[in-house]
This record gives sequence, C-alpha cells and structure tokens, in this order.
Amino acid sequence: MAQNAPLISPSRRLRRTPFSPGVEAAGVKGYTVYNHMLLPTVFRSVEEDYRHLKDAVQVWDVACERQVEVRGPDAARLIQMLTPRDLSKMQDGQCFYVPMVDETGGMLNDPVAVKLDEDRFWISIADSDLLFWVKGLAYGFRLDVLVDEPDVSPLAIQGPKSDDLAAAIFGDAVRDIRFFRYKRLAFQGRELVVARSGYSKQGGFEIYVDGSDIAMPLWNALMEAGKPMDVHAGCPNGIERVEGGLLSYGNDMTRENTPHEAGLGRFCATQSAIGCVGRDALLRVAKEGPVQQVRAIEIHTGGGGRAPIPPCDRAWPLMDGDRQVGQVTSAANSPDFNTGVAIGMVRMTHWESGTELDVITPDGPRAATVYDTFWI
Amino acid sequence: MAQNAPLISPSRRLRRTPFSPGVEAAGVKGYTVYNHMLLPTVFRSVEEDYRHLKDAVQVWDVACERQVEVRGPDAARLIQMLTPRDLSKMQDGQCFYVPMVDETGGMLNDPVAVKLDEDRFWISIADSDLLFWVKGLAYGFRLDVLVDEPDVSPLAIQGPKSDDLAAAIFGDAVRDIRFFRYKRLAFQGRELVVARSGYSKQGGFEIYVDGSDIAMPLWNALMEAGKPMDVHAGCPNGIERVEGGLLSYGNDMTRENTPHEAGLGRFCATQSAIGCVGRDALLRVAKEGPVQQVRAIEIHTGGGGRAPIPPCDRAWPLMDGDRQVGQVTSAANSPDFNTGVAIGMVRMTHWESGTELDVITPDGPRAATVYDTFWI
Repeated sequence: MAQNAPLISPSRRLRRTPFSPGVEAAGVKGYTVYNHMLLPTVFRSVEEDYRHLKDAVQVWDVACERQVEVRGPDAARLIQMLTPRDLSKMQDGQCFYVPMVDETGGMLNDPVAVKLDEDRFWISIADSDLLFWVKGLAYGFRLDVLVDEPDVSPLAIQGPKSDDLAAAIFGDAVRDIRFFRYKRLAFQGRELVVARSGYSKQGGFEIYVDGSDIAMPLWNALMEAGKPMDVHAGCPNGIERVEGGLLSYGNDMTRENTPHEAGLGRFCATQSAIGCVGRDALLRVAKEGPVQQVRAIEIHTGGGGRAPIPPCDRAWPLMDGDRQVGQVTSAANSPDFNTGVAIGMVRMTHWESGTELDVITPDGPRAATVYDTFWI
Repeated sequence: MAQNAPLISPSRRLRRTPFSPGVEAAGVKGYTVYNHMLLPTVFRSVEEDYRHLKDAVQVWDVACERQVEVRGPDAARLIQMLTPRDLSKMQDGQCFYVPMVDETGGMLNDPVAVKLDEDRFWISIADSDLLFWVKGLAYGFRLDVLVDEPDVSPLAIQGPKSDDLAAAIFGDAVRDIRFFRYKRLAFQGRELVVARSGYSKQGGFEIYVDGSDIAMPLWNALMEAGKPMDVHAGCPNGIERVEGGLLSYGNDMTRENTPHEAGLGRFCATQSAIGCVGRDALLRVAKEGPVQQVRAIEIHTGGGGRAPIPPCDRAWPLMDGDRQVGQVTSAANSPDFNTGVAIGMVRMTHWESGTELDVITPDGPRAATVYDTFWI
C-alpha cells in the first residue's frame, strides 16, 4: 500500500469531527478511520511528529474516541457486566482502563470508563461499535438504563509541556490532577471533564469536549496559548505508541483474544467481577494463564536505518524455523532506539525474553528478538 | 479533503481482504474503510470506472460485506427479532434485503440476509458491527444459537456482461438465477453461494467466497475468462449508485432514522413481524408514515459541468429560505444526466416532486430540486 499511496475517499460515512477545520488548517497529510470517524495519522511526517511529541506539546483530535453513555438505576450493574475488572470501588472523578469481553471472554473493546456519577458513566471506546453490544445486553436483560452516543468529543494535549499548556487554559488546578483522575474545569463558562490520560507515554490530558459548539473555540485557544511552547497539531504517533507498548484494539488484539493474552491480566479480577458476562469463560485462563501473550518484539534493521521495515498492514508470522509461534501486529522504525520496534503475540513456548525468532514481512524474513518490556 | 488529498495510513486494523493482491495489481487508487476493512473506491478514475461499469463487466472486491452467521435451533427466531420485515415465508435459496432496527426502531444496518438452511443464515452486512447487537440479543435472551463472523468474502460481478462472465466460470446455470435468489455452484470443487444481487443497477452477481484460499484463484479465473468482455477490476461507483438511488448506511441513513424515513417501508410488515424488537416503536410510524423521507435531489450545475459540485463529505443542509427542511447526504456529478445527482432526507412539507430548494455545499449554496424517483 505505501508504494501506491492510495487516497482516502471522502464520504459522510467517514465522519468528520468538530475539530476537522483545525486539523485541515494544520495541513493533515494522512488519516485512518476509527469508529466510523476520521483520525489524523500524520501532519509534517511521522518522524517529525514523533520528535516534536517527545520534545514539546501537541493538540490531538481524538474525537473518534466516541463515548457510550450509560445512565440510570442499573448503570453500574451494566458496566460491570461488560468487564472482568472489579469496578465496585470505582469513585467519581476516576477513569478506569477496562478490557471488555463477550460471553466467551473474547475482547470487544479496551475503553476507558469515566465515572461521572453513581448512576452515570461514559465509556470512551476503541475502534468497535461497543454501543451495539451494550444496547443488546441492556435490552436482553431489561435493564433500567439509557444507552446512547452523546455529542462528546475528546481532545488530547500530549507531550512534556502538557501541564503548562493545559494550565494556560484551565488554570493551575490541572497540575494536581492525578493519573487516570479527572476534574471538572471551566472553559468559556462550560464545565468540562479534564482527565490526566492519553494515548502516548509523554504525559498529558484528555478533555471531554461536551458540545460540538465549543470544539473549535477550545482548539483555537490551545493553539494560541501554546505558541510559546511550540504547540503543533498532532495525533497518536505510530512509532511512539509502539515503543511504549500501547496496544491498539483491532491491531494487537481482537475478539479472538482474552485480556490475559493481551497482557491485561492485571486489570482483571475475574474471581470478584461478579456479573461480568465473560467471567465463567475467563476463570480458567485467569487461573492457569494464557498460552500466548503480547510481547515487545525487536525487528533487527541492521542499525542506522540500513534496512527499514515496511509499514505493517497485516499480521506478520513469527517463526521458529518452519514453525509459526506467533505474529507481529504493529511495527515501526524507531529513530531513538535505532531499530525496528514491534508488538506481537507469542506462544508461551517462545515468549521468554531474549528468544530469537524470524518475522516474515512482505519484504522477506527478518531476525527478531522477543522482550518482556517495551522501549520505555 | 479532496483539495489536500490525504492518504490512508496502513495498519492491520484496516483489514486487507483475500482479494487485496488482485486489487493492488489492478492499480487501485483510493479506498474507503467499511467494517474495519479496505474497500476500493477508484481504479482508473471514478468517471472511467462509471462508464466501464455501464458498458462492460467488472469484478469487485466487496469482502467488506462481512457475514454474521447465525445457526442453531433459535436462528430463525433471532433473525426475525432483528427486522420488521416478515421473514416467515423466506425459503432456502432466497436472499432478503432486511432493514435492521434497535428497540427504538432506529436503523442499525441494512444487510442482505441469506437463508442457507432452516436453522442457518448469513447476514451480509453494511458498515456497522451488527455482530455485537446480534450477540448481545442472543446472550440476553439465552437463545440456542451460534453467532460468528465466518471466513466468507463476497466477490461481485457487475455490469451488462455479468451473465456471460459468470457463465464462463460457473456454467449456464447462472443465467437462470432469479433476482435475489442464489444457487450453489462449483468452483474448483467447492460449492459456492452465487446470488443475483449487487450494489449497482447494472445487474450481476455476488459470490460468497467461502474460504480465503480460493479467493485469488477465483479472482484470477474471472479476470482471465473476462478478457474478451473487457473485464476490469472495479468497485461500487459513487456516481452510479447515487443515480440509481442505492442507499448507503452511515451516509444516507443512520441509527437516527427509521426504515420508513429511509424509504424502506415496503420491506417492513411491522404488524406481522412478530418478535421484532423494534416492532412496538415502529407501529405508529408504520401507520402514520414518517415526517421526513429519502428523496432524489437534483443539484443544478449549470449543465456541461460548468459548476461541478464538490465531494460530499458531510451532510449538506437543504434550505427553504432561512429554514432547514432536510439534508443531502450523498452527491455526485453525473456524466450521463449532465447534472448533480444526490440523495437526501426531506421534511414532508417539502418532499413533493418538483419542490425547489437550496442546498448549502462547502463551496456555497446551489439550487436543488426534489424528485420522487432516481435516475433510473
């Protein structure tokens, strides 16, 4: 694909976002599609965007992280039905990363749940129509809840100067927000949920912009206030997120995988997650452990970028000789680590750190090494 | 977007199809994303593809029409739960276009259901994760069914020479297949469902390729056999489908709309669709009719292509003076009809054929006329 560089064809079905005018003015060069919505992938170049993200501060249109709002007397019960994470101690002001599973324990999404009130939640979703599953359960179990997609569009501030930029708009209260906590802070008279979270390892915030009408005013205010900090429009970066081991639903795990295979066992309390529809199916894997799991994979490029790896547009088999023992699902050429960084799923027979394998890319086989930590 | 021509960024999450090698060899120039999968949008140019589709025959990679397979003792009951269309008389060998709705009567998808056996169906879906809704209902109602996405990828043959091309591969039996019926026909020893259907008005077939391993062999066989008929790789054409009034879920109707608003009332038998979860919500609209409905919209371009309309990447308001009375959701410049052709949703006060309105495009307002039939 990269060779031919196909264009993305516009249609209403690939929804624009409330921030699209800002994204276009900033010269977006590429998109992916996420929850039927446009998600920018590159502004200057993936490498320039990467360097800038690590050095300064960026504003990201992540409106595609759509919200599933669940409210009503049965809201907390329904949210717990969706996940093996124990949510019984979740407090207002807290965000929880929650693997969500079907009745077989297969992952349907890996969203962040935001508790707004005892009977009101947002589920900030990865790329699948989780709304359909939540609605189906709510209807099937005759739960007393409303389930809908509200007009809420997240905007992220990411990078080492995020606190300064957020403080310039929302005041110094942002500096005290703890990781995966939020505060309600005012912008133009509107109280917005501002959470310390985001899809990078460089720190920052996600602002849940509640109402499309204030989307561009906030975008413009951030761009103006950020000038002294060299703010730029940015987006989740394909190199940085792989270095950091940030998983992508649909890339690194799918409905085929349990949370334990995705390395998310620490977010599961399968014994105590009473009501989770996948609980029965997950009890055994929670006890015995999975037979394959996500690992960091180094793909050797000979150093100095002499043999860069191609774009990873499909699963690449991981081989021990003639035997497939896993697959790589995301990969990038890392400028900072001067090698190929990748995320893969590896069989337990070969997942020990340091295991040497081959990965079959469309350009041919490459030497690869399994590691148990990412490049962080 | 068209001005900047952004690229689509490759990732495993935007799934390739079993036909991708053929599509790439044919020089695909653009994609959209549909059910998390790549769907080609242009090969030579949209206008050249359009002319060729109407004159000859094309082979389309529509693997993105994923299947939701439902089988088991409760399969027929579950399928009827999904739709206000009365499926009680559906026979083996039949395909039904079935608007699918949630408990509020809002459309979740507009797939084609294929009855394979009394207790086995494929739902060949438009662009939403209908699987999640079907699984949610099946689980909530404790139905005795299996629900899954099988390895089945449709390949379409479309255009006036479709019968000749299909007959060259499957034999003359294809000529007797009636509209929205199918036969099981052999290719390389495998029995495939071959249906007379497809997303154009030029006639043709959809082959449900059951097993990725025979996808490229079938693609190549069609390309070879089609040489005397000037076969080309093609795709759903953005001009031809609007001329023909073929709706696109996510473009022309969404979860906000009932089937009646989408002009699909003729496929609904809301009174007799016993078990449809949206039945209660739809009874009133079925009786009284909707307050807005899909219509053909001509957008005047001055003739001769002097003022072509831009790509329709968002809903364009339809105005009667200062009052919004509807929206255009798909639009194209038609070479054959020498005007702007469009699909819109119009309030009942203004849906009479011949009503003159203005449509607000990103390039400014244009004169528009409402019609009750499309360009067919």
